[in-house]
Amino acid sequence: MSNCSLCDSVGGFWLLEKNGWRVVRAQEENYPAFYRVISNSHMAEWSELSPEARAAGMDLVVGVEEVLRAQLQPRKINLASLGNVVPHLHWHIIARFEWDSHFPAPVWGPPLRPAPLAQLQAIETQLAALDVAIVQRLA
Amino acid sequence: MSNCSLCDSVGGFWLLEKNGWRVVRAQEENYPAFYRVISNSHMAEWSELSPEARAAGMDLVVGVEEVLRAQLQPRKINLASLGNVVPHLHWHIIARFEWDSHFPAPVWGPPLRPAPLAQLQAIETQLAALDVAIVQRLA
Repeated sequence: MSNCSLCDSVGGFWLLEKNGWRVVRAQEENYPAFYRVISNSHMAEWSELSPEARAAGMDLVVGVEEVLRAQLQPRKINLASLGNVVPHLHWHIIARFEWDSHFPAPVWGPPLRPAPLAQLQAIETQLAALDVAIVQRLA
Repeated sequence: MSNCSLCDSVGGFWLLEKNGWRVVRAQEENYPAFYRVISNSHMAEWSELSPEARAAGMDLVVGVEEVLRAQLQPRKINLASLGNVVPHLHWHIIARFEWDSHFPAPVWGPPLRPAPLAQLQAIETQLAALDVAIVQRLA
């Protein structure tokens, strides 16, 4: 055990691995359409990677974003690489909707409203197809 | 006027323009070492850009990150492209420190502590040199 949660565990629902990165669905409460692109190697900062490793990771981020946009027509996609708590490179790709619990604020602040169950369930019924489309697009 | 604040204004302290993107210092309270890489064209989503336009923008993001790491030795760099309020592509590049008002939380939530004046001022005295180093690195 390395004391890093992204070295010791997958970090979500595993979808695929490619070019030193893995793609997982984050399984975050109230945000079903939330994916992560996680470096296999324990690096903290994006600029520590080689240009080739960055391009490989960003290709996956863009691919996930494209599938989310095509399948869900979200109001906005949010991308972020933070890593303050877990300093192991990972990109968040989050489909945002006007009805979601934080919109238009970032997901990391206090919620502005309860997440409406009907809309969440409508997304959840599409998750299997979404996961498959991401694997098909990126694998 | 276009009704978009990033079409109608620079969006910060202007540093340089390159390949369809501009680099500004964000001038956010309590976060002196906070820069933005802003698309000149009014596009909402990262995956709407051509691969060449994305690469040009990401080169600037990485360059700003490299300068921040070299000059300030931050605890972490945070990168994000959100745009829920202003759907005009812009990347946030934020140097994070253990002493800052939100660390280790993202900067968009409630502060965990007041930002300590001495440390803020120590960063502020370096801003001119930081701005120059960014322009030298990227121009």
